[in-house]
Amino acid sequence: MISENLRTDRKTFTTHLECGLKGDRYSADQIHGLSKAGKPLLVKYDLKELASTVTRHELAQRPADIWRYREFLPVRKTENIVSLGEIHTPIIPLPNLQEGTGTLYVKDESRLPTGSFKARGLCLAVSMAKELGLNKVAMPTNGNAGAALAAYGVRAGIQCYVFCPEDTPEINVREIAAQGAIVRRVNGLIHDCGRIVREGIQEMGWFDFSTLKEPYRIEGKKTMGLELADQCQWKLPDVIFYPTGGGTGLIGMWKAFQELKSIGWIEGALPRMVAVQAEGCAPIVKAYQQGERFAETWENAHTIAAGIRVPAAIGDFLMLDAIKESSGYALTVSDTAILGARDIAAAKEGFLMCPEGAATFAAYQKSLAEGLIASSESVVLFNCASGLKYDLPPMNEMIDRHQPIHYSNMF
Amino acid sequence: MISENLRTDRKTFTTHLECGLKGDRYSADQIHGLSKAGKPLLVKYDLKELASTVTRHELAQRPADIWRYREFLPVRKTENIVSLGEIHTPIIPLPNLQEGTGTLYVKDESRLPTGSFKARGLCLAVSMAKELGLNKVAMPTNGNAGAALAAYGVRAGIQCYVFCPEDTPEINVREIAAQGAIVRRVNGLIHDCGRIVREGIQEMGWFDFSTLKEPYRIEGKKTMGLELADQCQWKLPDVIFYPTGGGTGLIGMWKAFQELKSIGWIEGALPRMVAVQAEGCAPIVKAYQQGERFAETWENAHTIAAGIRVPAAIGDFLMLDAIKESSGYALTVSDTAILGARDIAAAKEGFLMCPEGAATFAAYQKSLAEGLIASSESVVLFNCASGLKYDLPPMNEMIDRHQPIHYSNMF
Repeated sequence: MISENLRTDRKTFTTHLECGLKGDRYSADQIHGLSKAGKPLLVKYDLKELASTVTRHELAQRPADIWRYREFLPVRKTENIVSLGEIHTPIIPLPNLQEGTGTLYVKDESRLPTGSFKARGLCLAVSMAKELGLNKVAMPTNGNAGAALAAYGVRAGIQCYVFCPEDTPEINVREIAAQGAIVRRVNGLIHDCGRIVREGIQEMGWFDFSTLKEPYRIEGKKTMGLELADQCQWKLPDVIFYPTGGGTGLIGMWKAFQELKSIGWIEGALPRMVAVQAEGCAPIVKAYQQGERFAETWENAHTIAAGIRVPAAIGDFLMLDAIKESSGYALTVSDTAILGARDIAAAKEGFLMCPEGAATFAAYQKSLAEGLIASSESVVLFNCASGLKYDLPPMNEMIDRHQPIHYSNMF
Repeated sequence: MISENLRTDRKTFTTHLECGLKGDRYSADQIHGLSKAGKPLLVKYDLKELASTVTRHELAQRPADIWRYREFLPVRKTENIVSLGEIHTPIIPLPNLQEGTGTLYVKDESRLPTGSFKARGLCLAVSMAKELGLNKVAMPTNGNAGAALAAYGVRAGIQCYVFCPEDTPEINVREIAAQGAIVRRVNGLIHDCGRIVREGIQEMGWFDFSTLKEPYRIEGKKTMGLELADQCQWKLPDVIFYPTGGGTGLIGMWKAFQELKSIGWIEGALPRMVAVQAEGCAPIVKAYQQGERFAETWENAHTIAAGIRVPAAIGDFLMLDAIKESSGYALTVSDTAILGARDIAAAKEGFLMCPEGAATFAAYQKSLAEGLIASSESVVLFNCASGLKYDLPPMNEMIDRHQPIHYSNMF
């Protein structure tokens, strides 16, 4: 009953790691945090050898989960895979929201374990932690990453410490605790939580699992790109709208496309990558508009879309590079637009997005209105988590079963 | 990007419908509620012709969603399929919860649209409603069925009216409203809501979408059985534990196994079907223990597992037949056992079940303790919905970022 992908040993192709900024090399199969320059490390593969070992057709015969792409991933030993069922997420058409002659789809990442795309990154990061013998990790989170870490961590027998902002959705805090992690709220934002992790490393013997401070979450998020290409029969959409906080997904997807392109698996052009941020926290948009490669910390960050409330991202230059290389752009949407987009998508398509997912739909609308995309283009939005984790408007009308009911008056 | 299953016309094999109790025939492709005897109708297919048209191998080449099994389903025209991405749900091993030499797996139905297995039934029921031209339907629900109806209904342009008990989880009521349905709470239980639907039919022009009162939800739930068989390479597990409220899933799965068996697709024995109910609402267990084929209404029903709080089920005899034919049994678990099972599964496997799903794990433990199953058997539990929709214990410990942190004292 277990996926064949989890029972089958496959050849692996990791050659080394590289600093994402400087390009200096680091050995594979050893514990690494950031590079000497203090920047994220990227995993490198012998892609030529990979391409001479497997074909797209062979991959298509395997079960539809992220481990279909095993040769593109760093885990050496099958037994180290920590899995909770990382199935392919569906791509759902939104015909009632679409404008013009193009197509509008949403990739529904809420179908992954713990209800968010964070499962991709943490599944890989925890599997690699297991492979490399880590047993105590700590992380700041806006909620969903912590939930995914807790679930995979407990399954791997790794003790996890999670710190989240005071206003993190209640359900997130509770699920993190239920899933065996130690979790604390902090009266600050995610970068305050990150500092608490950093300062506790020595005393607590933690490994720092912050976004991009270990090399493997990117590889997990990379599967979004591999999977999307596979689901599109290797011909990608014109534009991808992606909610951008720490940026691992944007960076990971772009890395996937580069790897696939380099071995000739992608047919046609690469998509334009659009980074979507909230008006109240838009460091990447600001840097993009000013033509900078590095982003300043955003002061007084606020937005209801907590997942993209990330005032400072260590992978800023990797995001900005991807946006530029893809001829994409970065834009903001207001909280009002986010909630409006969520309500319209639910009411017109029966699809309940999380606020961050709804931000991509709001950005699609804004982009059409401003002529940033053409209505003839094919567009994929990313709904990164389950809309059920967030507040919805209450509905309290009650019927008394003991009284006669006047139906026609009622509705 | 749309699943090939949703773009491809396939031959269909529905011949007619039959009363589940009396066996009298009804025409296919017409609107039907209950049979003349007031019992559920079952859809019948020309399975011989079906088996001479497709093979298991052919099905395996199609995308992994419920529409892979199109030939076993009643929708005639591909354009009438109303889809939100009904992907195959993963089967996850629970090695830390398993006892003895057998195997313990959970099929995670929370991965379906709107976060529950109700999507299977409502996807089919709404698609058939579209095919048959219904435009106004009403339903009583304990929460998840209403959410699924709302989502598919709004996508199909069908106006939905949903009635739920007062204590339905808040998130369910809100998602139903957000997804375009009209929803009301009722100060009673699901059968009180059912009465309100029934009495409003004439005045409101509703079609009654109550469990088993239209023939197609069973066909949707049947895909659980088809999919399970497919995922197990057509060799089923020894025992299936299923949380039993209205019973559509139990009936549907057993129908699937019968259909597959009749065309020789299943290798080996059929599983024993175990109906799991809560101590505070166990009409099927009581009827099973007394050797009855019909169940009495359960008075003063109460359990935290609201999804299985169904005091009276119109499909009682179909459930009890399936339990008997499969050499299965029915048993109760306490609310305390349910919550304990949920907490252990989350803390040991990183798998957060809903209360109804946790009831099946509690029933597995109880069955082992009472010798109802052997520890060498292969067991599949069904987690029917996302654990995120339900209350979890709070976790309120807070760190003040302005104060020095004494890490070792804190943890």
